[in-house]
Amino acid sequence: MTLLDYVAEQQQFIDRTLERLIPGEQQPPEIIHRAMRYSLFAGGKRIRPILCLAAASAVSDTAPGAEVAACALECVHTYSLIHDDLPALDNDDLRRGRPTCHKQFGEAIAILAGDALLTVAFQMLSEMPGADGDRKVRLIRELSTAAGTVGGMIGGQVADLEGERQEPTAELLERIHRAKTGALLRASVRMGAICAGANEAQLDALTCYGEHIGLAFQIVDDILDVEQSSEALGKTAGKDAQQHKITFPVVYGLEESHRMAKEECEAARRALEPFGERARRLWEIAGLIVERTK
Amino acid sequence: MTLLDYVAEQQQFIDRTLERLIPGEQQPPEIIHRAMRYSLFAGGKRIRPILCLAAASAVSDTAPGAEVAACALECVHTYSLIHDDLPALDNDDLRRGRPTCHKQFGEAIAILAGDALLTVAFQMLSEMPGADGDRKVRLIRELSTAAGTVGGMIGGQVADLEGERQEPTAELLERIHRAKTGALLRASVRMGAICAGANEAQLDALTCYGEHIGLAFQIVDDILDVEQSSEALGKTAGKDAQQHKITFPVVYGLEESHRMAKEECEAARRALEPFGERARRLWEIAGLIVERTK
Repeated sequence: MTLLDYVAEQQQFIDRTLERLIPGEQQPPEIIHRAMRYSLFAGGKRIRPILCLAAASAVSDTAPGAEVAACALECVHTYSLIHDDLPALDNDDLRRGRPTCHKQFGEAIAILAGDALLTVAFQMLSEMPGADGDRKVRLIRELSTAAGTVGGMIGGQVADLEGERQEPTAELLERIHRAKTGALLRASVRMGAICAGANEAQLDALTCYGEHIGLAFQIVDDILDVEQSSEALGKTAGKDAQQHKITFPVVYGLEESHRMAKEECEAARRALEPFGERARRLWEIAGLIVERTK
Repeated sequence: MTLLDYVAEQQQFIDRTLERLIPGEQQPPEIIHRAMRYSLFAGGKRIRPILCLAAASAVSDTAPGAEVAACALECVHTYSLIHDDLPALDNDDLRRGRPTCHKQFGEAIAILAGDALLTVAFQMLSEMPGADGDRKVRLIRELSTAAGTVGGMIGGQVADLEGERQEPTAELLERIHRAKTGALLRASVRMGAICAGANEAQLDALTCYGEHIGLAFQIVDDILDVEQSSEALGKTAGKDAQQHKITFPVVYGLEESHRMAKEECEAARRALEPFGERARRLWEIAGLIVERTK
């Protein structure tokens, strides 16, 4: 199977699982479930769930509950996008080529839909079949830490907001992005590995992969915001410069940013060596992340 | 010890535990931890944590981790207040006699502080000492379900928002409040009982207590909004009528609402009979909830 076929197949698998795990649009109160599903099924790339499932496969053929962990990650990612797009934060009207959640449903429902996606992520992990209590707790701890304020996603968002008023240094840039996008990408790989029963050495190697891939992802995100049109991205381009965000192109320039992304991709791939052929998909995904155009 | 001394002692115990579990104000990014703590240590009554601890005591002298469950409940409650007060929702400037979180820190930080309190609630349960994995998972499931969209807190908030445009019927009123405040109060009692290792019969009886006390709490809340001044409440009074909320005084009138609150209190107390003297504090708290003036 080619990489693109594999990705498409995994995306469909994730969508089917989310469809099953998220309350239906007919479930009262309907409006909140419609809003959650509007953002959840908006054509997201499913990078975090795919990383989770591919990391599980690198360790073992069986990883009970990995599909639930994958969906929980996507719920947390989607909640963060909904809240990030709000007028008080990034104030974005466009996401994945469609009106953002608050543009479609109003701010009140968008805030609550984000809250609900965060909540349901932990609920689905607690109700995950096939895993024992200790493993579920470990997954919940991974996800809550990665989403939290200390080195996690919220901490990164806050540092990013504050960064708009600070000197754009390499140190600040790395700290922001390691938390803002890096922590959840790292957790994606780790949660898949945990579902598959990874030993410590395997978990360390995959964590290393996850950290490099996380940095590569963010560098490319920053580059695309400069180089691509809003139409190509499906979201407003050029916002980083407009909001005086600290980005890789601002700190290092475009050419050096391209080089760094490639270097992070190679470092991520080196971490996969112990897994051999089992990690083929992770190896390929690293390339996909760096070469993507949206 | 008198009831008021007991309550004061429990409040101090909760505050000390929260102090330990929530990142300090010096922990970067400082602003988010300051905002979380601003709302968390704003003189809340700690009703949910106290119910949790008192329910645990009704079952057993030892309830490992009950203080963590109690704090997780308070974090979820506080997050819901922060988001509820936002301009897009209830648009409140005053809470517990002080400026609301977004008035003090701005909307962006208030949204993220709410998100962070919700996240850290699950993190602290996953890191709770003294309980095995299965028990932690059960607590996480209780809390996430009670906070969620299907019969839980967010579902109630959405129904409440939508109710502003609907016919105020007794059925709609009960559905809203059973979810909006009832679910978390019910979970408070249940989580304490679970920490104490309650059997099914004990859990059922305490759930029954929790449901009646939850309804009593909301009826009194609605009454106070009509009868008290903003100064006495420490939050804006008269907002329900102003926002055309469906409340108990609107549907039943004030006199009947008072009678119903008393009736719910008595029903709650009857559910405690199997516990005898062990449930004395729960019995007393039921009275406190109905007789409170703010």
